[in-house]
Amino acid sequence: MEDPYTSEHPARTPGRIVVPVILAGGSGTRLWPLSRRQKPKQFLALGGQRRSLFQQTVLRSAAIARVAPPMIVGSASHRFLIDEQLAEIDHEPDCIVLEPAGRDTAPAVAIAAQQVANRYGPDAMALVMPADHAIDDTEAFVAAVNAAADVAEAGELVTFGIQPTRPETGYGYVRCLPANGRAVRTVDAFVEKPDAEIAENYVADQDTFWNAGMFLFRADRMLEDLEALEPDLMQNARHALIGAEVDGRMLCLDTVAFRGCRSISIDYAVLERTDRIALMPMDAGWDDVGSWTYLDRLPAADDAGNRTQGDVLLQNAQDNIVHSSKRLVALSGVSDLIVVETADAILVAHKQDAQSVKTLVKQLESLGREEAEHLQRVYRPWGFYESIAYGSRFQTKRISVKPGAKLSLQMHHHRAEHWVIVQGTAVVERGGERFMLSENESTFIPIGTTHRLENPGNIPLDLIEVQSGAYLGEDDIVRFDDVYGRSETSEPEAAASGPASPSQTPAAATV
Amino acid sequence: MEDPYTSEHPARTPGRIVVPVILAGGSGTRLWPLSRRQKPKQFLALGGQRRSLFQQTVLRSAAIARVAPPMIVGSASHRFLIDEQLAEIDHEPDCIVLEPAGRDTAPAVAIAAQQVANRYGPDAMALVMPADHAIDDTEAFVAAVNAAADVAEAGELVTFGIQPTRPETGYGYVRCLPANGRAVRTVDAFVEKPDAEIAENYVADQDTFWNAGMFLFRADRMLEDLEALEPDLMQNARHALIGAEVDGRMLCLDTVAFRGCRSISIDYAVLERTDRIALMPMDAGWDDVGSWTYLDRLPAADDAGNRTQGDVLLQNAQDNIVHSSKRLVALSGVSDLIVVETADAILVAHKQDAQSVKTLVKQLESLGREEAEHLQRVYRPWGFYESIAYGSRFQTKRISVKPGAKLSLQMHHHRAEHWVIVQGTAVVERGGERFMLSENESTFIPIGTTHRLENPGNIPLDLIEVQSGAYLGEDDIVRFDDVYGRSETSEPEAAASGPASPSQTPAAATV
Repeated sequence: MEDPYTSEHPARTPGRIVVPVILAGGSGTRLWPLSRRQKPKQFLALGGQRRSLFQQTVLRSAAIARVAPPMIVGSASHRFLIDEQLAEIDHEPDCIVLEPAGRDTAPAVAIAAQQVANRYGPDAMALVMPADHAIDDTEAFVAAVNAAADVAEAGELVTFGIQPTRPETGYGYVRCLPANGRAVRTVDAFVEKPDAEIAENYVADQDTFWNAGMFLFRADRMLEDLEALEPDLMQNARHALIGAEVDGRMLCLDTVAFRGCRSISIDYAVLERTDRIALMPMDAGWDDVGSWTYLDRLPAADDAGNRTQGDVLLQNAQDNIVHSSKRLVALSGVSDLIVVETADAILVAHKQDAQSVKTLVKQLESLGREEAEHLQRVYRPWGFYESIAYGSRFQTKRISVKPGAKLSLQMHHHRAEHWVIVQGTAVVERGGERFMLSENESTFIPIGTTHRLENPGNIPLDLIEVQSGAYLGEDDIVRFDDVYGRSETSEPEAAASGPASPSQTPAAATV
Repeated sequence: MEDPYTSEHPARTPGRIVVPVILAGGSGTRLWPLSRRQKPKQFLALGGQRRSLFQQTVLRSAAIARVAPPMIVGSASHRFLIDEQLAEIDHEPDCIVLEPAGRDTAPAVAIAAQQVANRYGPDAMALVMPADHAIDDTEAFVAAVNAAADVAEAGELVTFGIQPTRPETGYGYVRCLPANGRAVRTVDAFVEKPDAEIAENYVADQDTFWNAGMFLFRADRMLEDLEALEPDLMQNARHALIGAEVDGRMLCLDTVAFRGCRSISIDYAVLERTDRIALMPMDAGWDDVGSWTYLDRLPAADDAGNRTQGDVLLQNAQDNIVHSSKRLVALSGVSDLIVVETADAILVAHKQDAQSVKTLVKQLESLGREEAEHLQRVYRPWGFYESIAYGSRFQTKRISVKPGAKLSLQMHHHRAEHWVIVQGTAVVERGGERFMLSENESTFIPIGTTHRLENPGNIPLDLIEVQSGAYLGEDDIVRFDDVYGRSETSEPEAAASGPASPSQTPAAATV
């Protein structure tokens, strides 16, 4: 079997090795409007925390005994975000596996297990962790993982269980046989989303656990089960990996083979069907960050129980969760609300209705609203842009280009662009010319002129772009050359987004 | 007595004449964040209405029998707004009296009575109306005014009374003697802000009315009473008028004399002390628009009792008032809330707490927050500007210049400015040069260069200004020449506003 990485022979740690496999592909709509399809909750730093859930997961995994660098499995549409967030914590992953489509967790785990076996040998262990969960107590987490590794080494698939603290009807539960003094438990049955009465009973039951969505297994063992239980899925997964394109540490899975994988969770595909499954209880302050009320678990509430972030003014207000991204949010005489302000959307929900935010986002998606998809700040391989103002004949963007980065060579049929440099230095290609601009300088790109923007310096290049013209649709872009391989309409979002309308933030790919 | 207008001899209507005197100087903080000190509620079109409360008041007054054009009394800081709103309804007032400071209603009424006497003769009648009240039924309003005019002609001061519909403890009440079959009522006593029990009794009492803040009187009669009861105030008022500067139809009162007037309401100064007072009941759907719950009186609620304006998405929400100015506002699982979104601030309040918004604004004012003062769009004699984005070394504004208008000749020590024309034509003066720019063209004003912007055309000139530099404080402006008389720091807001900080919208005078 060919694998783009096998020739690299990574250094093997003596004894058993644990490879953290971080599943970062979720969409997390229940934390809308902060979480968007283009920047889902795993990439957010919530409740005043410094690091995103994804970053916390990466950092936490480093504390495990005999651990390898993590393997990230994420969506191809988040590649720049993953890259950026790893760079922020100065963390070098083993590799980043990019999925060209959503196929639930079984294909991701199949490919990760295969990749772990290829890289570290068939008896290396994989610890699968969702990137969008929170764990307070790293020490307890590490202890549970180390204990589970002993069990997994012997050939069991080990799932991690959380003692229920409330009668959640939306979670999956795992019923175990009595402990008989052992830490690791024998699984009796999986119970998905029980009714309220049953869930209530489980809270008091020492032998029933929440399924935390974390699994530890020897790569060869998972591959055996997958081969036996889901042979078609396994074959497609293998082809997706063999056909993958390598781009640095990025592994872009073969689209056709990956799309051929059936969409199914690893729970349904293997864990609930295998006969070699065990459960390791974990008491580490786990939370699935399933809605805004997650913030109620964090400290830093005021005397009246309000948890606020950003520019918030309260008057006679109790037990609210308030997040302001930029503007003043003032509350008066209200309680138990979730209020979230972002550049393009505001949410006001009752805490009891926190789960329904998901439905709200579905409604937005069915209306084709940009607010479901993007935050106003859109990340690109070269940096980011924000649409800051628009009218019938103009649109203004703030653009930030990373040191050394370069936008595509492009042209517009219907709009002129004015660039004003407010920080850093730009190299501009315009028609046949090439010249440099620094702070306080500006240039003009007439309609139909090919142009390119580049940051040759060591600090970010910040500029204001004023687009002017009768038609400012995002589809008016012709790409000639792109260092990130996006020539013509290879970027899905460039093709998907329609013309900008004044009633909605035009936020899709442009530059 | 000198009066700048007496020489004009306006055409006298035969018979008694009624001059609407519209008091437009209120600050209306309880409708924050839509209402701001620089654009208070009387200038807002609320609840989907086409016209502002001020415009409605002007238009309504035109239906009165033998009516003169209205006289507007307003704050000098709202002069451009008043002008603009009158132009929108194509209404030419008799004159606009501008107060250089707030002194409650007695000085305003004193000056208006004097002015009415000067212009139309001492027996002309003045109908004083607050500009920030709503009246549904113009026909009933006109009938009450016409009936009151007969009484006022005989020398009574006539106040208008509303039959209470709820036990308001914040209103002023007027108790009358039994009707004895007459429409006009004899006043027995004024009662300010009664307690809840008394207010409850008044709801059922046919002889007690809300004081609607509207008064009708013969100018000479009011002047006699003022002279007798408040001679100092009257003398200062007279001097404020004599010393007024005339600017077209604007009458800018003498600052020193006007500031000398004691600050007192006309109710306390005269109406509650005179012995010639009557009350005319009025059943015309009056509301003082005292808080956001005013919108609950307007039609157009959905089946669940929600009243929304702008881009609003509701899910499982009842009886809410939601106003979105620009961005999406989504509500889920909430009821009886007031949610108001503006460019720089969001309010979430319980309806029961609607009156407390005033306290919230006081808190903002004491914090020196811009959000208490300005909307993001700031009106100027030449048009308006909006701050649309800012960072540590840049600020971006959208500027709109009216046809024929001209900004001051000015210079900045610390910032450069880039102008990109997105609509219309500009004449730019820069250093010694003078040149024309049209759509899609731009120019650059280096630090320290004198410059001026002018719209020579027939359509609005819209441009994007990018300010760039290490210091972007609003006090970095040197004015050399200004067609609106604002050279140097003659504009109070230019002097008052401090440097722009990234944490707060820099929205004060600039250009």
